[in-house]
Amino acid sequence: MMPTTTRVPHRVFGTSTSGNCHKVRLVLDILGIPYRWHEIEIMRGESRTPEYLAMNPNGQVPLLQIDDHTWLPESNAILCYLADGTRLWPGDRLQRARVLQWLFFEQNAHEPHIAGARFTRAFLKQPEHPRLPVMIQRGYQALAVMEQHLARAPYFAGEFSIADIALFAYTHRADEGGFDLAAYPAVRAWLERCLAQPGVSEMPMSH
Amino acid sequence: MMPTTTRVPHRVFGTSTSGNCHKVRLVLDILGIPYRWHEIEIMRGESRTPEYLAMNPNGQVPLLQIDDHTWLPESNAILCYLADGTRLWPGDRLQRARVLQWLFFEQNAHEPHIAGARFTRAFLKQPEHPRLPVMIQRGYQALAVMEQHLARAPYFAGEFSIADIALFAYTHRADEGGFDLAAYPAVRAWLERCLAQPGVSEMPMSH
Repeated sequence: MMPTTTRVPHRVFGTSTSGNCHKVRLVLDILGIPYRWHEIEIMRGESRTPEYLAMNPNGQVPLLQIDDHTWLPESNAILCYLADGTRLWPGDRLQRARVLQWLFFEQNAHEPHIAGARFTRAFLKQPEHPRLPVMIQRGYQALAVMEQHLARAPYFAGEFSIADIALFAYTHRADEGGFDLAAYPAVRAWLERCLAQPGVSEMPMSH
Repeated sequence: MMPTTTRVPHRVFGTSTSGNCHKVRLVLDILGIPYRWHEIEIMRGESRTPEYLAMNPNGQVPLLQIDDHTWLPESNAILCYLADGTRLWPGDRLQRARVLQWLFFEQNAHEPHIAGARFTRAFLKQPEHPRLPVMIQRGYQALAVMEQHLARAPYFAGEFSIADIALFAYTHRADEGGFDLAAYPAVRAWLERCLAQPGVSEMPMSH
């Protein structure tokens, strides 16, 4: 008789207070995929050690370990990989492109400013940093684009998808970067819809 | 008899000297997909008019018009859409994730710095801009990650793919941002391999 093969759970190297890492936790929790979480203290340089750089030369979290010699970096690529073939990743070509549209929006128009402001204020503790006003201005521009979309649609790309998960991660902690969502009612209602999804949890506060 | 339906060619709203737009041209040319190019002068505000914002609320180029009421923004999402089902987009789940890994790397670790430095120097004509040293430093970090990968593999994700096209766009004009590729021989050899692919052309210079 062949022995039953036990599939090794995915390992995630991540920082629990990082939105990019929290995204990965959310997808795993929503889909009920078993995983082991290895906490990485980026502020102590644990993502820049030789051992870590051998797994991810770009020195960032999160990192998904798929097997003993396969690692996947880039939070949104991890989301696509984990969601592939599930209800969180549409089968239709145009809908898939819409998910990707918002995933790239998140990385170039949202995360640098909304996560950047949070990191500067809540982690670096530099509320007078000269880049902060630009981050705040551009972060509000991203929120305005989201508000316009969510005023007409419940989610970013049809049904609830990894596009929502990616944007939820830093948006629901935007207050820690100094953003006020009072003028964005559609965004706030969408955050509540996301939180009502089974498996979705809030990210730990920065302190 | 039913009339023969003529498929309307895709329309691209783009700026020829923008790497994000040039990527889209490259994929269309490589795949031999007919298209009409509508030149947008971003420096004259043509991507911020009410008509343009109605098509793309985020006010950016490039924008792919799929039909009379369907527009797709975000250069790398457009690449994924156009390459879907072709040799430029792998069928294997992990290989697809690798393509996405490098597409997200391009948008968060490469384009903001390498394209940002080029835009600051060659378009804004602000060689003394206070952000430029940070862009140069982080751009070289991205080039180092690329060099390390390309020293071991001919392309970013197995065969030539949209990951190569996305990274080619700004890398082959990095000199306009003040980057010197002399210390990156694997990157330079990869640029030559990309240029040898049928359909791949250089982007017009900034001046």
